[in-house]
Amino acid sequence: MMRNLPSLDRLVRRLQKIPYLASKNIYKVAGYFIGSQQQVVDEFCAALKLAQQSIKPCKKCFHWAEGSELCSICQNQSRNQRIVCVVETSHDLFAIEKAGGFDGVYHVLGGALCPLNGIGPDHLMINALLERAVEQAISEIIFATNPTPEGEATASYISSKLTGTGIAISKLASGMPIGSSLEYMDRVTIFKALSGRRPF
Amino acid sequence: MMRNLPSLDRLVRRLQKIPYLASKNIYKVAGYFIGSQQQVVDEFCAALKLAQQSIKPCKKCFHWAEGSELCSICQNQSRNQRIVCVVETSHDLFAIEKAGGFDGVYHVLGGALCPLNGIGPDHLMINALLERAVEQAISEIIFATNPTPEGEATASYISSKLTGTGIAISKLASGMPIGSSLEYMDRVTIFKALSGRRPF
Repeated sequence: MMRNLPSLDRLVRRLQKIPYLASKNIYKVAGYFIGSQQQVVDEFCAALKLAQQSIKPCKKCFHWAEGSELCSICQNQSRNQRIVCVVETSHDLFAIEKAGGFDGVYHVLGGALCPLNGIGPDHLMINALLERAVEQAISEIIFATNPTPEGEATASYISSKLTGTGIAISKLASGMPIGSSLEYMDRVTIFKALSGRRPF
Repeated sequence: MMRNLPSLDRLVRRLQKIPYLASKNIYKVAGYFIGSQQQVVDEFCAALKLAQQSIKPCKKCFHWAEGSELCSICQNQSRNQRIVCVVETSHDLFAIEKAGGFDGVYHVLGGALCPLNGIGPDHLMINALLERAVEQAISEIIFATNPTPEGEATASYISSKLTGTGIAISKLASGMPIGSSLEYMDRVTIFKALSGRRPF
């Protein structure tokens, strides 16, 4: 299809690299910016550049930090720095923070082991976690990797490296999500909920 | 939730204004840019600014035009400039071009009538279409607005304004989409397909 819109094609190629932007919506996002005032585009680009320059990984937990070497959670002395919750990404961390009820700190791995995609232990912040476990007085590590094959394998791998350290190791409970229906739940979840049943 | 990431919050507020970007994915898109090299962000912003500055509405049909007052379709003299296909957006135009089989030109309305959202005839390029119908020797207008209440109302409104011009007016056929299954089709579509049945 000849359309003689080279700068649209260039923008679309850039938009295609953004994860989680459905290809059906790429032209709609492009259309939004093309139809915007120049000021809107300038302000968007300024926000993008500022965020990319200002937000760096926390030196301790690799969550996003701004204006300091440590993120706000690692800096917060009212949080229990001896309990570390291990998550795959900062998005997962936000989800746990939103849920409330956890007053420890985090360790963001940056993903999960996935040998088929070439993601091995050295691509994740696993060694940094093992160093934290040795150097800092950590009493408990809670694995909150996703309940996927990759997330489970990542938790297993790290926990095998932690044997002998004396640190208590736990992982998030598996079971029925609240508000769900047995009728529509997959059988692995039901099996896990049954085998992990708790006294009423 | 205290998180002390002001530049992330600012970026997220900008991203929230982009249509068709699901709120679940906004932090993932933000994370993509935060974790990118500065060069990636700079190139993305340059592409965005260039597209916004270079692409203007075609003076004739209001489709996107670059480097000229007219879009490439209006400029193309091998296309039949007397048959005009009326669409809501440039995305719809691209969909028809991709399907092939149409060698006329277009008119992009910029949306559909939606009084509940405050979109009346003056917000769309309807008067420009009526002027084209009078000034240019248009022989046929094909309505390709979406088969939604708003799209149908827009086509009806414009066609009522065109009575007496002698221009042939048609609209896209309604019926069963190819590859679909009667079992899962809504009843309005089946009713339309039945009442619009064609000799075999």
